[in-house]
Amino acid sequence: MHGVGCLALAFQETVPFQPTYVAGDDGHVFLWIALGVGVLALLVAFWLARHVILSDAGTPEMQEISNAIREGAEAFLRRQYRTIGAIALVLAIVVFFGYHLSPRTAPYASKTVISFLVGAICSGLAGYTGMYVSIRANIRTASAARTSLNKALQTALRGGAVTGLVVVALSLIGVGLLFLCFGGLDNPQAVPYQLVGFGFGASLVALFAQLGGGIYTKAADVGADLVGKVEAGIPEDDPRNPAVIADLVGDNVGDCAGRGADIFESTAAENVGAMILGAALFPVFGVKGILFPLIVHAINLIASTVGVAVVRSKETEDPMHALNKGFYVTSGLALTGFAVAVYTMLNGPLVQPMWLLGCGVIGLVTAFLFVYITEYYTEARFRPVQSIAEASLTGPATNIISGLAVGMETPAMPVIVISAALLLSYYFGVKGLAGVTGISDYAKGIYGTAIATMGMLSCAAYILAMDTFGPITDNAGGIIEMSNQPDSIRERTDKLDSAGNTTKALTKGYAIGSASLAAFLLFSAYLEEIKSIVTAKVAGAGGFMPVGWSFTNINLAEIPVFVGALLGAMLTYLFSSMAIKAVGRTAQMVVQDVRNQFREDPGIMAGTSKPDYGRCVHIVTGAALKEMVLPGLLAVGLPVAVGLIFRNFSESYQANASLYASGAILQVPAIAGKAVNLAGAEAVAGLLMVGTISGILLAMLMNNGGGAWDNAKKFIETGQYGGKKSDAHKAAIVGDTVGDPFKDTAGPSLHVLIKLLATITLVLAPLFV
Amino acid sequence: MHGVGCLALAFQETVPFQPTYVAGDDGHVFLWIALGVGVLALLVAFWLARHVILSDAGTPEMQEISNAIREGAEAFLRRQYRTIGAIALVLAIVVFFGYHLSPRTAPYASKTVISFLVGAICSGLAGYTGMYVSIRANIRTASAARTSLNKALQTALRGGAVTGLVVVALSLIGVGLLFLCFGGLDNPQAVPYQLVGFGFGASLVALFAQLGGGIYTKAADVGADLVGKVEAGIPEDDPRNPAVIADLVGDNVGDCAGRGADIFESTAAENVGAMILGAALFPVFGVKGILFPLIVHAINLIASTVGVAVVRSKETEDPMHALNKGFYVTSGLALTGFAVAVYTMLNGPLVQPMWLLGCGVIGLVTAFLFVYITEYYTEARFRPVQSIAEASLTGPATNIISGLAVGMETPAMPVIVISAALLLSYYFGVKGLAGVTGISDYAKGIYGTAIATMGMLSCAAYILAMDTFGPITDNAGGIIEMSNQPDSIRERTDKLDSAGNTTKALTKGYAIGSASLAAFLLFSAYLEEIKSIVTAKVAGAGGFMPVGWSFTNINLAEIPVFVGALLGAMLTYLFSSMAIKAVGRTAQMVVQDVRNQFREDPGIMAGTSKPDYGRCVHIVTGAALKEMVLPGLLAVGLPVAVGLIFRNFSESYQANASLYASGAILQVPAIAGKAVNLAGAEAVAGLLMVGTISGILLAMLMNNGGGAWDNAKKFIETGQYGGKKSDAHKAAIVGDTVGDPFKDTAGPSLHVLIKLLATITLVLAPLFV
Repeated sequence: MHGVGCLALAFQETVPFQPTYVAGDDGHVFLWIALGVGVLALLVAFWLARHVILSDAGTPEMQEISNAIREGAEAFLRRQYRTIGAIALVLAIVVFFGYHLSPRTAPYASKTVISFLVGAICSGLAGYTGMYVSIRANIRTASAARTSLNKALQTALRGGAVTGLVVVALSLIGVGLLFLCFGGLDNPQAVPYQLVGFGFGASLVALFAQLGGGIYTKAADVGADLVGKVEAGIPEDDPRNPAVIADLVGDNVGDCAGRGADIFESTAAENVGAMILGAALFPVFGVKGILFPLIVHAINLIASTVGVAVVRSKETEDPMHALNKGFYVTSGLALTGFAVAVYTMLNGPLVQPMWLLGCGVIGLVTAFLFVYITEYYTEARFRPVQSIAEASLTGPATNIISGLAVGMETPAMPVIVISAALLLSYYFGVKGLAGVTGISDYAKGIYGTAIATMGMLSCAAYILAMDTFGPITDNAGGIIEMSNQPDSIRERTDKLDSAGNTTKALTKGYAIGSASLAAFLLFSAYLEEIKSIVTAKVAGAGGFMPVGWSFTNINLAEIPVFVGALLGAMLTYLFSSMAIKAVGRTAQMVVQDVRNQFREDPGIMAGTSKPDYGRCVHIVTGAALKEMVLPGLLAVGLPVAVGLIFRNFSESYQANASLYASGAILQVPAIAGKAVNLAGAEAVAGLLMVGTISGILLAMLMNNGGGAWDNAKKFIETGQYGGKKSDAHKAAIVGDTVGDPFKDTAGPSLHVLIKLLATITLVLAPLFV
Repeated sequence: MHGVGCLALAFQETVPFQPTYVAGDDGHVFLWIALGVGVLALLVAFWLARHVILSDAGTPEMQEISNAIREGAEAFLRRQYRTIGAIALVLAIVVFFGYHLSPRTAPYASKTVISFLVGAICSGLAGYTGMYVSIRANIRTASAARTSLNKALQTALRGGAVTGLVVVALSLIGVGLLFLCFGGLDNPQAVPYQLVGFGFGASLVALFAQLGGGIYTKAADVGADLVGKVEAGIPEDDPRNPAVIADLVGDNVGDCAGRGADIFESTAAENVGAMILGAALFPVFGVKGILFPLIVHAINLIASTVGVAVVRSKETEDPMHALNKGFYVTSGLALTGFAVAVYTMLNGPLVQPMWLLGCGVIGLVTAFLFVYITEYYTEARFRPVQSIAEASLTGPATNIISGLAVGMETPAMPVIVISAALLLSYYFGVKGLAGVTGISDYAKGIYGTAIATMGMLSCAAYILAMDTFGPITDNAGGIIEMSNQPDSIRERTDKLDSAGNTTKALTKGYAIGSASLAAFLLFSAYLEEIKSIVTAKVAGAGGFMPVGWSFTNINLAEIPVFVGALLGAMLTYLFSSMAIKAVGRTAQMVVQDVRNQFREDPGIMAGTSKPDYGRCVHIVTGAALKEMVLPGLLAVGLPVAVGLIFRNFSESYQANASLYASGAILQVPAIAGKAVNLAGAEAVAGLLMVGTISGILLAMLMNNGGGAWDNAKKFIETGQYGGKKSDAHKAAIVGDTVGDPFKDTAGPSLHVLIKLLATITLVLAPLFV
C-alpha cells in the first residue's frame, strides 16, 4: 500500500527488463467483464432466492418450527454483527492512527481503512444473505420432500447456491470496484498493494463469524444431546427437548454463515495476493496479469451456475451422485474457461501459456485429491473409519485412542499432495516464463503457484453451494421429524441429510487445501511488503540500500524468528483450546437451562406443554458471543504484540549487528551507518509461517478426526459391530461427541485464523519496521 | 567434522580478531579433572548398586515375582539391543560409504563412524546398567518397606541414582575420551566437529529404546487393564491376570531404560553442541571454553551424589518433601560449582563472567519453572486436573474434551518461559562478551544460550535418579500387592508410588524443556556445519566465496524450505499416530492372549492354578520390537530423503538462480560462475526446525494431557465427585486409558525424535550439499 511499485521494481533493479507486452487500454475491458459477470451473478442469486422463497412453505406445523429457527438465527446474527462491527471499528481506528504515526505511511491510511471496511461489510453481507436464504430454504426443502426427492434436492442446492454465488460475486465486485476507485486503470501496478485492507476486513469478520457460529452450533448440539439423549432418554430432534431449536439454529449460524465467511475471505485474500504478484509481472502481461484473478472468478461464477442448474436426481438414486455430476460439469467448464483466459490474458511472444495452464490444472487436481483424501479418512467404506468402529468394541477409550491416531495420520497425504502441487506449479511457472528475462525465477515460480491457487478456487462457488446444502437438509430433516411427518418423507430427508454430511466434510478438506496453497502466496506478499517498506524508509532517510537486496532472511536459528515461530505454533494450540473450552462452558449452560425447564414444568416431558425454545436460544446466543471475543482478540493481538516488542527491542538480537556496525558487512540496508532493525518484521514472519503450518496440521487432525468419529458411529448404526444401542455404539457416541467441537468449532476456526494471520501481518507490516 | 575450524574462522574473516586469552597447556587439566570425576562417579554408582543388591531381598514369594519381572525385562532388552544393533550397524555402513562418496568428506569417515558407534554403545550400556539395577532394586524396596518408609525411599532412590550417575558419567567419559583420542589436546578447535557422530549414535539408540519400551509398557498396561479390570473385574496388579508381569516389566523397559537413553542423548548432544560453539570462542577462552561443558557435568555428578545422599524421610512425611530437599541441595551445589567453573574457565581481561553466570542461572530457573508448570497442569491441587475431574460428571465424552483442551493449553506457558530464557540468555551472552571484538554478537548470544542449556542440565543426574525412582517404587508396590503383604506395608509403597508418579511427570517436563533449549543450539550447529562444508567445497573447486557469507537463508517463503517444514511438522504427527496405533495393536494381542489363557485354564480365575506370565511377556516383547521399526525408520529416512531429493532437484528452486547465473548478484558462493545449489540443505533445515517446534508442542500436549487425565482419575478416587466406582470415576478411567499411550509412548518418543532429527542432520549434512 506504499512503496508503490517496489515489488515490480525489485525484480528489475539489476538487469534491464525486457517488456514482452506493452499494456494497452485493451486490458481494461477485462475489469468491466469481471464486474459485469459479478453483477449478473448477483441477479441470478436473487432470482434463485426468489424462486426458493416462492415455493411451497409446508404445513402450519412445519412453519411454526421453521419460524422459530429463523427468528433464533436472525437474532444471533444481528447481535453477532453488532459485536463484530464494534471490534472492526476499533481496529479501523487503530489502523488509521497507526498509519499516521509515520509520514511514510500516512498517505495510505484512508485507502487502507476504506478497503478494510469494504472487506468487512462485503463479508458480513455475504454471510447474512446466504443465511437469509438458507433459513427459508430449509422448510421449502422439507415441504418439497413430501413430493419428490429431486424437488427437495434442487430446492436445497439452489438455496445453497445463493450463498455460493453471493460470496464469490461480492468478493469479485468488492475487489474490482476498489481497484477502479483507487485509480487502478491509471496506475495498475501500484493499486493491488492498497487492497490488502480488503483481505484483512474479510478475515476479521470471518474469524468472529466462524468462531461465534462454531461455538454456538456445537454448544447447542452437545448440550441438547447430553441432556436429551443421555439424561432424559429422548431421541434427537425430539420436540420435547427445549434445546432442539437452538441446535437447528446452530446448523445455520455455524456451518452456513461461518463457512460462507471462510470461503469469502479465501477468495478475497487470494484475489489480492494474486493481483500483487501480477503487478510484479506487469512488464510481461500488462494490466491483464493483474486482472486475471478477477476473470477466473467470473468463470467460476458462470461454471458454478451451470453446474447447479444441471443437478437432478432420480427417486432411488443416491443424491451424492447428482451432486457429483454437477461438480464434474462445473470443473469441466471452469477448466475450459481457465484455458481460454490463460491463452487470452497470460500470453505474449516470450510466454508459453501451456505451462501456465498446467499450473491451473495442478490446482484443480489438488482440489480433487484433497476431496478424495478427505473421503478416504471420513467415509465408512474405508479402513480408517472402520478401524475406529472396530475399536469401539473394546469401549470408549479405544475408540478415542483410535480416532486420535487416525486424526494424527490424516495430515500425511495432504501434506505430500500440497508439497507436490507447490513444487510442480513453481516449476511450471518457471518453464512457462522461461523466455522472459529481467525477472527472477523466484518471481516466475511464485506466480505459477498463484495460478495453481486460482485453479483450485475456480469451482469455489459450486463447492460452497454443496456445503450450504448441508445445513439446509439437516434443518429440513429436523423440521420433518419435529412435525411428525410420515416415515417415507423422513427417508427422503435422511438421504439428503447423509449427502449433506459428506459435502460438509469435503468442503472442509477443500477449504484447508486452498488455505495451504494460498498461505504460500501470502508469505511472499508479506516479504515483498516488508521489502518495499524498508526500501522506502531507507530512501526517505538517504540511507544505504544494497543492490538486489530482498527481505528473505527468515532464519529460524535467530532468536527473534525462533521465538516468533514458537509463539505462532503455540497460538494455534491455545486458540483451539480456548475454542473447545468455550463450547464446553456454553454447553453446560444449555444443560442447566434444559434441566431447569424440565423441573419447572413437568408437562414438557409428558408432552402436554411446550418448552420455551426461545429461552435456550437466548442463552446460547449470549454465551457464544461472549466466548468468541477472547480467542479472537488473542489471534489479532499476538502478532501485533510480537512485532512491536521485537521492533523496539535491543538490536543485539540482529545477527551480526556488531559487524554491520563496524562496516565489515555492507550488504544490508542501513541508515546513517546503522543497519535497519528488522527483528520485528522477522519475528512476525516466523510467527506467521510456523503458525500457518501448525494451524494447517492441527485443523486437518481435528476436521478429519471429527468426521471419522462421526461416521464410525453412523457405520455402527447401520448394524455393524452390534448396531444401535450396543456397547460399541455407546462407545462410538462418545467419540462422536468428542469430535463435534473438533470438526465444527476449532478446526474451521483455525482455517480462518491462518488467513487472518496472513492478512493482519500484511496490513500492519508498516508498524513492524 | 571437516572444514576444520571454519566456524571459528567465520567469525574472524572480516575483522582481525583480538585474542584476550592465549590458550596454554593449563586448560588441558580440566579434561583430566572431568574424566577423573566421571570415573569416580562410575565407582560411586557401582558402590550404590552393590549396596542396593546386598540389601534384604524379601520373602521367597516376593522373589518369585521379582524374578519373573527381571527375566522378562532382560529378555526384552537383549532382543531389543540385538535389533537396534543391527540397525545401527547398517547405518554405520551407510554413513561410512556416504562419507566416501566425496574426497572432501572421506578423511572424516572413520572418525564419524567410530564416534557414532561409541555413542550408540555408551547409550546402550547406560540403559542396560540402569535397568540391571532397578529391576533388582524393586524387590529390595518392597522388602525395605516392611521395616520403614525411609529405608524403602532410600533404597529406591539409590537404585535410581545408579541410572542417573551412569548415564551422565558415560556421556562425559565417552565425549572426553573421543576428544582425547581424536587429538583434542593438539587441535582443540577442530575436534568438536568430529564428535557429532557420538550424538547421532546416542539418539539412534534412544529413539528405538524409548519407542520400543514405550510401546511395550503401554500395550501391557492397557491390555492388562482392558481384560483384567474391565472384562474380568479383577483389581490392578492381581496375580490372576496373566498380563500383570508384562505390565511390571513394561515399567522398567519403558520408563527406566527409555528415559535413561533420552537423558543420555540430551547430555551427549548438548555436550557436543556446546563444545562446537566453544570452539568458535577459542580466541577468547582457549581450550577451557571447549572443555567447559564437561566440567559442568562433572559438577552435576558431584552435586547429584550429595543430593541423593542427604535424602531421608520421616515415617509420616510425604516422600516428595524428602525428594525435593535433595533436589534443592543438588541445585544449590550445582549453582555454586557452576559459578566457580565460570569464574575459573570463562574468564579473561575483556570478559564479564557475571553475565555468563547469569546465563547459567537462567537455565536453572527455567528448569524450576518447567517443573512448576508441569505440576500445575498435572497435579490435582490445581484448576486443570480439577476441571477434568468435574467434566467427568457428565460422562467420558466431556472428560476427553476437557482433557484435550487442557493438553492444548499446556504449551502456552512453557513456550513463553523458553522464549524468555532464550532472549535473556542471548542478551546476557552478548553483554558478558561485549568487550571482545572480532566475534559477532550472534556468536556471543548463541554461546549465552548454550551456557543456559548447560545450567538447565546441571542437575540432570539427580533428576534422572528421581525419575528412575518411579518405576522402582511402582514395581515394589506391584510386588507387595501380588505377594499379599499386610495393608500397613502397602500404605508405605502407595505413598512412594504416588511420589514416583509425580517425579515421572516432572522429568518429562524437564526433558522437553532441555530439548527445547538444546534444539536452538543444535540448529546453529547445523547451519555452521553446512557453511563449513560449502566453504570447503568452494575452496576445493577454486570457486567464489563472498566475504562474510554465512548459511542463514532458511526462508520459509521458498518452496524447498516450506515443503521441508511442512514435511517436518507432518512427521511429528505421523510418527505419533504410528506409535499410538502400535500400542493399540500390541494391546489387542495381550487381550487376546489373556482371554485365551482364561479360557484354556479356568483354574486361573478360581485361583487354583497360575497363569503363564512368560507367554504374555514373550508376545508383548515380539510385538513391541516389530512395531518400533517402522516409525523409527520413518524418522531416520525422511530427513535423508528430503535432503537428497532436493539436492538433486532442478536448481530452479533456488531463489534468484537466474540472477546468480547472470552475475547480477555476486554475494553467493559459486563454482565456475554457477551458484552452489543449497536447496537440499535448506529443505532439511526447514524440516529440522519446524519439525522440532511442532514436536515440542505435540509432546507437551500429550505428556501433560496424559498426566492430567491420570491424576483426575486419582483425584476422583480420593472421594471427590462420587469417588471410586461412581459414573464420574468410570468416565475418568476412560480418560486415563486414552492418556496412557500419549504420555508414555508417543510423547516421550517425540522428545527423542526431535534430538534425532538434530543429530542425523548434523552427521549427514555433507550429503545435502
